[in-house]
Formats: sequence, structure tokens, C-alpha cells
Amino acid sequence: MDKYLLGIDLGGTNLRMAVVTSEGNLIEEVKVKTESDKGPKHVIHNMITICEGLLQKRNIEAIGIGAPGPLDSKQGIILNPPNLPGWDEVPLTLILKEALGKKVVLDNDANAAALAEAAFGAGKGKESVFYMTISTGIGGGYIYRNQLIQGANFCAGEVGNMVVNPDGPPHPILNVGSLESLASGTAVHRLGKEKVGMAGDAGVVFTLAMNGQQEAEEIVDTVLTYLAKGISNIVHTIDPHIIVLGGGVMQSNEYIMPLLLEKVNDYLYPQLRNKVQIECASLGTKAGVIGAALLTQQGYSGKGRG
Amino acid sequence: MDKYLLGIDLGGTNLRMAVVTSEGNLIEEVKVKTESDKGPKHVIHNMITICEGLLQKRNIEAIGIGAPGPLDSKQGIILNPPNLPGWDEVPLTLILKEALGKKVVLDNDANAAALAEAAFGAGKGKESVFYMTISTGIGGGYIYRNQLIQGANFCAGEVGNMVVNPDGPPHPILNVGSLESLASGTAVHRLGKEKVGMAGDAGVVFTLAMNGQQEAEEIVDTVLTYLAKGISNIVHTIDPHIIVLGGGVMQSNEYIMPLLLEKVNDYLYPQLRNKVQIECASLGTKAGVIGAALLTQQGYSGKGRG
Repeated sequence: MDKYLLGIDLGGTNLRMAVVTSEGNLIEEVKVKTESDKGPKHVIHNMITICEGLLQKRNIEAIGIGAPGPLDSKQGIILNPPNLPGWDEVPLTLILKEALGKKVVLDNDANAAALAEAAFGAGKGKESVFYMTISTGIGGGYIYRNQLIQGANFCAGEVGNMVVNPDGPPHPILNVGSLESLASGTAVHRLGKEKVGMAGDAGVVFTLAMNGQQEAEEIVDTVLTYLAKGISNIVHTIDPHIIVLGGGVMQSNEYIMPLLLEKVNDYLYPQLRNKVQIECASLGTKAGVIGAALLTQQGYSGKGRG
Repeated sequence: MDKYLLGIDLGGTNLRMAVVTSEGNLIEEVKVKTESDKGPKHVIHNMITICEGLLQKRNIEAIGIGAPGPLDSKQGIILNPPNLPGWDEVPLTLILKEALGKKVVLDNDANAAALAEAAFGAGKGKESVFYMTISTGIGGGYIYRNQLIQGANFCAGEVGNMVVNPDGPPHPILNVGSLESLASGTAVHRLGKEKVGMAGDAGVVFTLAMNGQQEAEEIVDTVLTYLAKGISNIVHTIDPHIIVLGGGVMQSNEYIMPLLLEKVNDYLYPQLRNKVQIECASLGTKAGVIGAALLTQQGYSGKGRG
């Protein structure tokens, strides 16, 4: 029989909560604004109130939270995410466990989305899935036989910090020349501003490039070249059965994907060319909340867990 | 009860064969010169003769071969390795199966050594092990819960082709600026020759650096910086419980390791610094033959298998 699981997708803008079956069926969903500017107490109060409502209706086995990093998934603590102002070492799993009396687990939003895409999305049925989110930042998650590979220090999938160009640019936290600083939406935006004084976000640059604006095309070419190098580095490390690409930048996927796939081939061993499967994520914004629920089915065993 | 397995470590210089138990005990070993200049027929004839002798003494369950790449481990075919002249698409598993009547599997030598180090060497008891061999080339193997992660196209662990510097150098097969072309023993040798006209191999450069020769120290610094970037890229992708370093270059490990560990920290997320376990391989030259035997315990299922 299906079990009921509660997933919480805590984003800087939206707070999504959903009852999901272990078969991935989304039974009921609640979406509200996070109102992160009102601080953690306010957000957690709202979270608990909505959870209580959902718990009254169904016998929920456990609660999983996907949240922006940095966080300590072993201890269940949200550290100090840039897009959750005022959160500073908040022991969220402990707080929810005490308020709701259920097992609670926490992991980063990319790992949650990776689980969902591997179990029910573009990676369904594949032995190994590497999910990458290309958005304001770049993150990822690696799923092997439907199991999240967390890593020795819970840092598996953190490919945003991969070095792809020793010459830069610098970044306050990430490596000089990291994939995130060269190939994220933020990188597209920065290059647009620097090179042609574009004011818009990455989407504006992609739209201009699609319409043949030369400088925009050059920016897209530069960014996709770095992204292709990052993807080929992942392939030469774990050779996953599929690479699933999600995140805001991939909303321009019809334009990006053919260019990207061609570039990835340039950086693969000859025998791998045209054999690496790369697809867009298929669950859209629901990946986060479904994946958060699926986190409860993974083998978390750290202290501080419910 | 222990099973008997036969491991074959086919190298360009030495051909090692050993009876190994599934518990990793090496019962009997035969080592001869490969005589690779005499071509594949000669080598395979010797291999079969020695195998027949070993098979007569004990009830051997299966035969595993570790060989230099490129090879097709799914089909059991050795393609055209640079250090096995004259070998060109040799269906080695099929030939041995027909001659010896046993199940035969084939994989590259780095994957074999990775299995051995994970099961019985420096990685023993660790949930996930990434093994890297730094020698003439750079290869690797990823072991998760004692299982070799082969990858969708049998290319997991091929980190020699990882891009760490887009500016070069070029290479006839590998990516421009690949880890192998920047951080292998061959790279040390090339830099020694280019920069100070040194005639010796990587060991000579390390010895000079150890004795304070400035140019040699600079070469070692450059090479270890790239190696550290490559290792940090692996960590940010899979965050293994241990990284085990083997291969000829690591014979200078007493000099290299402290420098390398310090450099790796420079390219890790702050929370990972001094937490990533990096150790030298511990099985020495026996890793290849023990690992080759262990290949038989992995789930190979491709066509052409015995």
C-alpha cells in the first residue's frame, strides 16, 4: 500500500508543501509566499500551521524538507542561505519534529529535485542519474539505483564549485573559475551587462541571441562552452546513464539544448560522442516538493534527526 | 567457503596471473614478461598456458582480466592500446573462454586496481572509494559499496580526460587542457625537458625538487596545482569517503603528499577543508592482479561474455 509522505519545498520566494505517495503521486499541495523578509520565526510558524492541517487529514509517515544551501543535512540545520535572510544555524528538523511528532529530514533543494526527476521524471528507470540545476547558481544531485549519493561530507553533486577555468573569474566563496561563476544564469546576466550593457536577466540575453543579436550570441556561446566542459567532466568521472538539466536557465531549452549537445560532444572521448543522454527535467516546479517527500525514504542517520 | 578466482593483470611490460580468494588472499602468483613486442598471439598463447597450469590445481570459478585501455569491457574486446602494439580489436574474453571453458570478464587496469584497493587496500571499509592512478597517464575507478560503478558507457573513472585548463596543452586524443596532459608523469617529464632540459623521467624531477632545485620545485608546484584541481572536481561531484592515489608518480609520495593535501584544500568548499580523506594506495603492484580477480564478482552482463 502507498505510504503518505509530506514534502516541504522551502524557497526564497515560494513555500510549497505537498502530500505525496511513495509512488510519487501528488495528493494535495499548498503553495504560499515564503515571506522570507519576515524572518525564520514567521516562516517556520506558517510552515507548522500548514503541516498541522495536512497531518490531520492523513496518516503521514514522515516529513522531508528541501531547502537552499548551505545547510547541514546530517544535523538537520539550515546554516545561512543568501536567499533566506536572517536564517543562521536554524535546527529546522528538530523544531518540526518537536512541533509535529514525526520523523523529519532535510537536504538541499538540488538533491531533492534530483531524487524526484530520477524516480518519476526524466530519469525514470535509469540506473544512474545526474541532475543539474542551472539557475542563479549551479547545483546538482547524483542518484544511483534510486538512492541519493550524499557523499562523505554531504557535498556530492556540488558541481557549481568545479574548476573549469583557472583564469577566473574570482568569487567570494566559490573557486576562481568555477562552473557556477562561468555558466549560471548569474554569469549570463553579468556578461550581458559587461559586454553590451544589457539590463535584463539571462532570459533577455537568450531572447536576443535567438533573434541573431551578435553579442548575445557570443555570450551564449561562451557560457555553453563552459557548461559543456562541466558536463563532460561529470561524464568522465561517473558516466551517468542520463544527465537531467533543470533550473531557470533551462526555460530557454529549445534554443539552448541543440547548441549544448553539440558542444558537449567536443569534450568527450570519441567513443562517447552522441551516446551520452542529456535531457531537460520533466517535473517542472513540482520536482522540489515531490523530491522533498522522497528524502524521507533515503537512509539519513545523522544526529539531530527525528 | 572461499571461492577461487583467477586474476590476470596484462601490462605492457609484465604479465601477472594469480589465484585469489574472494576474501582477497593471494594463493599463488605467476609473473612473466609480457613480451608485447612479439604481438598478441604470442602473449595470449603464454597467458593460456599459464592459466591451464593454475586451473589444473584448483577449482577456479571465473577469470578476470585487467588490461590497458582503450578497451570495450562490455564486449570483452581489447581495442588498440598504445602499450600493446599490434593489438587491434582482440576479443580476449571470447578467446580465453573458448580455450579454458570458464566465465571471463575484462575491464581496464585502473578499475581493477580500484576494486582491490577498495576491498582490501587503503579504501577498505569505506562506503565509497575513488581510486586514481597517476602514472604515464591518469586513470581512475569509482567503487560504491564494493561495487564498481562502470557507467552507462563503461567510462566512469576516466578522469584523465577532465578539462582543468581551457588554454592547453593540446593532445591527439584527450581534451585540450586535460588533467592527464597537465598532471601525469608524462606532464612532469615534458615540463622538465621544456623548462630545464632534464632528460630523466618524473622521478628525476621530483628528486631534484626535493633537493631544492628551483625550476624542479616550480614544475612540481604547477603539476600538483592541476592535480589538486582535478581532485577537488571529483570531490565536488561525488564527495567520496576516500580518494586513493596509486601509480608510478606516487612512488615519490613522501614528498608529494603533504604539498598535494595543502593544495587540495585551496580548491574545496570551506566546510570540506581537511575533511576529505586522501591516502596512498596500499597494495602496491599486487592491486592489479587482485582487482582483476575481483572483476569476476561484479555484475558484467554484456554480450561476448563467458
